[in-house]
Amino acid sequence: MAKLNLETVRGMRDFLPEEKIFRDEVIAKIKKVFERYGFAPLETPVLENLDVLKSKDSVGDEALKLVYDFTDKGGRPVALRYDLTVPLARVIAMNPQLPKPFKRYCIDKSWRYERPQAGRYREFYQCDVDIIGAESVMADAEILACAKSALEEAGLAKFSFRINSRKLMGELLESAGVARNQFVRTLRVLDKMDKNAPEEIAKELRTFLSEESTNELIELVKVKGDWYKISKTLKICDATRKEIEEFIGYLKNYGVKNYTIDLSLARGLDYYTGIVFEIDAGKEIGSIGGGGRYDDMIGKFSGQKVPATGLAIGLERVMTLLTSKRRKTNTKVYVVPIKEIERAIEIIEDLRRNGINADLDLSGRSVGKNLEYASKMEIPFVILVGEQEIKQGKVKLRDMQTGEELLLAVEEVAEKLK
Amino acid sequence: MAKLNLETVRGMRDFLPEEKIFRDEVIAKIKKVFERYGFAPLETPVLENLDVLKSKDSVGDEALKLVYDFTDKGGRPVALRYDLTVPLARVIAMNPQLPKPFKRYCIDKSWRYERPQAGRYREFYQCDVDIIGAESVMADAEILACAKSALEEAGLAKFSFRINSRKLMGELLESAGVARNQFVRTLRVLDKMDKNAPEEIAKELRTFLSEESTNELIELVKVKGDWYKISKTLKICDATRKEIEEFIGYLKNYGVKNYTIDLSLARGLDYYTGIVFEIDAGKEIGSIGGGGRYDDMIGKFSGQKVPATGLAIGLERVMTLLTSKRRKTNTKVYVVPIKEIERAIEIIEDLRRNGINADLDLSGRSVGKNLEYASKMEIPFVILVGEQEIKQGKVKLRDMQTGEELLLAVEEVAEKLK
Repeated sequence: MAKLNLETVRGMRDFLPEEKIFRDEVIAKIKKVFERYGFAPLETPVLENLDVLKSKDSVGDEALKLVYDFTDKGGRPVALRYDLTVPLARVIAMNPQLPKPFKRYCIDKSWRYERPQAGRYREFYQCDVDIIGAESVMADAEILACAKSALEEAGLAKFSFRINSRKLMGELLESAGVARNQFVRTLRVLDKMDKNAPEEIAKELRTFLSEESTNELIELVKVKGDWYKISKTLKICDATRKEIEEFIGYLKNYGVKNYTIDLSLARGLDYYTGIVFEIDAGKEIGSIGGGGRYDDMIGKFSGQKVPATGLAIGLERVMTLLTSKRRKTNTKVYVVPIKEIERAIEIIEDLRRNGINADLDLSGRSVGKNLEYASKMEIPFVILVGEQEIKQGKVKLRDMQTGEELLLAVEEVAEKLK
Repeated sequence: MAKLNLETVRGMRDFLPEEKIFRDEVIAKIKKVFERYGFAPLETPVLENLDVLKSKDSVGDEALKLVYDFTDKGGRPVALRYDLTVPLARVIAMNPQLPKPFKRYCIDKSWRYERPQAGRYREFYQCDVDIIGAESVMADAEILACAKSALEEAGLAKFSFRINSRKLMGELLESAGVARNQFVRTLRVLDKMDKNAPEEIAKELRTFLSEESTNELIELVKVKGDWYKISKTLKICDATRKEIEEFIGYLKNYGVKNYTIDLSLARGLDYYTGIVFEIDAGKEIGSIGGGGRYDDMIGKFSGQKVPATGLAIGLERVMTLLTSKRRKTNTKVYVVPIKEIERAIEIIEDLRRNGINADLDLSGRSVGKNLEYASKMEIPFVILVGEQEIKQGKVKLRDMQTGEELLLAVEEVAEKLK
């Protein structure tokens, strides 16, 4: 018999129960917080028509290279979605009847055709919240507050926000003598400041900017810290200053304190228009998410301008930071029939009707083998159903941790395990 | 500005919040029951290498035509998974260390390149439970009992199981003079008995079977009902009879009564080897799921025989049967600041910390517009935060159903809304 090539598709992986149970738990916590903040779920197909994704304005040139696209059997150019934002923009444009502001969350997979490497996959989960149709920076603050609560609920202890403003950077770039059509390119280079040395950044900038502009920018992007300190020296217009300070005020009301203003933050994608932010989880891991305001993107789809702001948390990086012990099973009790199979089935059905996660021996194994299996699977309790116990109208409940055994009626077992 | 083609990929659709909230609720109920029956979650990538899916023995010729396959950017022949069973078989073959029996559930999307039509999509959800490594028909009975509980929990009132046995059919086909290499073809024709007239079925059978065999089979597949009545006239060996009766005995222990033995049931896929079943939800909808024993499939992958049985519930059909009212939002209360934005933010954060799903006005709308919005979104409560209330250390809680307004402290609101 010819063996098949038993591999997952390159850059993708399975989640076996131990990992999947834990992931589901974390996702459920994040979902709970997203709903607490008034976000509603939205689901879109895994495939999008390529012309939607390819729209230069939606993902940008760099990102475009990573789109996992192909031609389907009907000759259609399609792609696995690159992120959860572009499909959202399409839905908003297709459904003008949706009441605004429209607050949606989505915890789902996206795909990027990246070079697979340790810890980087072509299939990965993002947890997104977006507010569509709200102009105020209060919406940006709400997004940040929600992300903070979600990460805390998920069990993340140490993280902070880096914050910048595209409007602010636009003004600063302009006053540094950068031409408007070089903004995106410049910001993309500056975005690498946390990874590369300033000399390298400067070298790259010099390929298309003047020496003077380059030097000014290199100094500029070193600026970070408290807004009221750093902003004193910045030559910016009142409206931009006011907007940032309004935003900072809201953060205070929301109780978000773990943030820094960081002028080196530009964010990779080209579609941001206002406040941008990134969630930083320390030097080793780096960014675990980010987002910002993208007031122009939906208009590119629908022809009608709709303000929007949102944030994506990268679940894969968050998972690597959560060190809690993985559970092997959600099963609470394992039923072992000692010949009495019929009675054992009735008992387990009774427990399940009472809301207990229960499993039973389906292979007619010996008591010893069954106890071994329950122990291996880390199931906390075992019920032994034998002739003697049945005569007494009871079962034997064994605590697998302590070894303690109790003779109980089935109703008592259900009560005890709840 | 050139407008983009704003459509979902052909045969696929979005789920807007109203539908998605309800779907999530149904999925959560099914998941809860699957875990009660001791099944553990497993997740696999949406893509599989085509040679895994294409393995003739895994999906069969008919199904193969519907595989949503393509060549990826790296020249790899890959496909969106056709079902949740083949990826499971791959995982089992790749991970021999997994303790057996391995009971896994999976509620996820699959894709088939079908001709799109009303109610039939190329992207759809299935809810699968499978038991790997248990030979006994007790495992088949456990699968059925689990499906019954899950559908009941989801809110389905009327459904029943049609049951047959591939072993039984093999014997009956043989004694009707059908050659072994015509079994699969014959069963596939017989499988259409619930859709086509007997004369059409007979006509098709006559193209490759004798007149005598055809007539015998047409009579045979009309047989349905109580096993002990219908089996009297069947010429079958003792082992097959014993296995079916053992299975029926277990169904009784599990409390599964809503079933019929139906010799016309063959199931479309070629990989079944033992008990097969289908869930019937009445004439209009027809089958909402099915499954059976497939003891040979995993061996085709790993070279080592592993018994397996399972069932897939088609979520899309189940959803069309659930008539409960869709909720527009999970938000419990909507906070309207009357100028007092800062205090409103603090109040809503307090409510959220107390586990209340709460949203607030982000657009500075008038009280009237905000009440209109809350009403349109069917949010049950509104909190009005005005200067007067704040002075008293209270807020006004409005019941949107009755119009009743109460002046309460924030802690009292949280208590009341819980």
